[in-house]
Amino acid sequence: MASDQLDALEALIRSRRGGDPDASYVARLFTRGRAKIAQKLGEEAVETVIAAVGSDPSAIVPEAADLVFHLLVLLADAGLSLDDVRAELARREGLSGLEEKAQRKE
Amino acid sequence: MASDQLDALEALIRSRRGGDPDASYVARLFTRGRAKIAQKLGEEAVETVIAAVGSDPSAIVPEAADLVFHLLVLLADAGLSLDDVRAELARREGLSGLEEKAQRKE
Amino acid sequence: MASDQLDALEALIRSRRGGDPDASYVARLFTRGRAKIAQKLGEEAVETVIAAVGSDPSAIVPEAADLVFHLLVLLADAGLSLDDVRAELARREGLSGLEEKAQRKE
Amino acid sequence: MASDQLDALEALIRSRRGGDPDASYVARLFTRGRAKIAQKLGEEAVETVIAAVGSDPSAIVPEAADLVFHLLVLLADAGLSLDDVRAELARREGLSGLEEKAQRKE
Repeated sequence: MASDQLDALEALIRSRRGGDPDASYVARLFTRGRAKIAQKLGEEAVETVIAAVGSDPSAIVPEAADLVFHLLVLLADAGLSLDDVRAELARREGLSGLEEKAQRKE
Repeated sequence: MASDQLDALEALIRSRRGGDPDASYVARLFTRGRAKIAQKLGEEAVETVIAAVGSDPSAIVPEAADLVFHLLVLLADAGLSLDDVRAELARREGLSGLEEKAQRKE
Repeated sequence: MASDQLDALEALIRSRRGGDPDASYVARLFTRGRAKIAQKLGEEAVETVIAAVGSDPSAIVPEAADLVFHLLVLLADAGLSLDDVRAELARREGLSGLEEKAQRKE
Repeated sequence: MASDQLDALEALIRSRRGGDPDASYVARLFTRGRAKIAQKLGEEAVETVIAAVGSDPSAIVPEAADLVFHLLVLLADAGLSLDDVRAELARREGLSGLEEKAQRKE
């Protein structure tokens, strides 16, 4: 798959593992562990939801960026990558597979 | 920015706007509107959080895929794109800018 | 502590433990387990958040009721009770203790 | 309905409306407005979910207390009360009505 700015960010995030928690927010998140990273992801999702239903669509962008950023940290912490997510999306055989799965969850 | 599988998915999602809500989950989400899409995003974030703190890291991947999928639907519904999110991430001037912003929120 | 309608609901919920999952939503939730109950709590919180930022305050009430209902199921599933929550609130020595704790989390 | 410790807390919370935001966390929340209060509620729900799926049930209690506390602040901010939530729960005619509604949402 084509490497992308998001993959470059993921590589940067991984490089902070084991770094100085006092010098790096990401290193500190890795030190605090999975539950803390998951909590931050959840909090950013709440902020994205609130921005989404507000009157200014442009307010969604910074919250979505925070959400994606913390998702990349979570994936890295779990030994996973954005490519695993891409592979899962591809495995669902395009949008019809995605739609079928989403409908089963409805 | 390099086009990516995620951008291809975004294009597919956009192509469903105005489609038949009975035939397409995405078309139905667009019909139900922003609050419903935000709700689905929030629900997928909850599922990602639960998978994240569970004992099987591989369980994170399908939930992260659902989260990314619904984020792309939300962005499309708001006239935004993944490129807007990439631009926001770039604007923060690399990881140090991201870390600085995240620390201000701590 | 004074028994209350919420305690009566809690007792009803507990009485469904071990009941027929096909006949009772609460019995089914207990059967599906802690993670599923937590997921439902999270989903109801998302709906409460969305109602909260909407234009019709009265829309908050049914979502808050769903949230409280699933919180009572979660407490029951974990062998806890609303009285444990009341005791925790009391332990914080009134609102100033609550405020102090909330501020530490900010 | 019987007055309860939770109603006493609700009264205390209401008494902080218009208070000094520098002296009171609750007064500050009221000043910051509905979206901020909703955000805090969502964050506490995320923490409750994480505690719920962890190995120590007693960790649920402080998070549930935070969740209830911020729900009371939200209700107060919207001119609503815990009694409105009790009335909604009663209106559903006992657990069977609650279960019926929850099943419709499944």
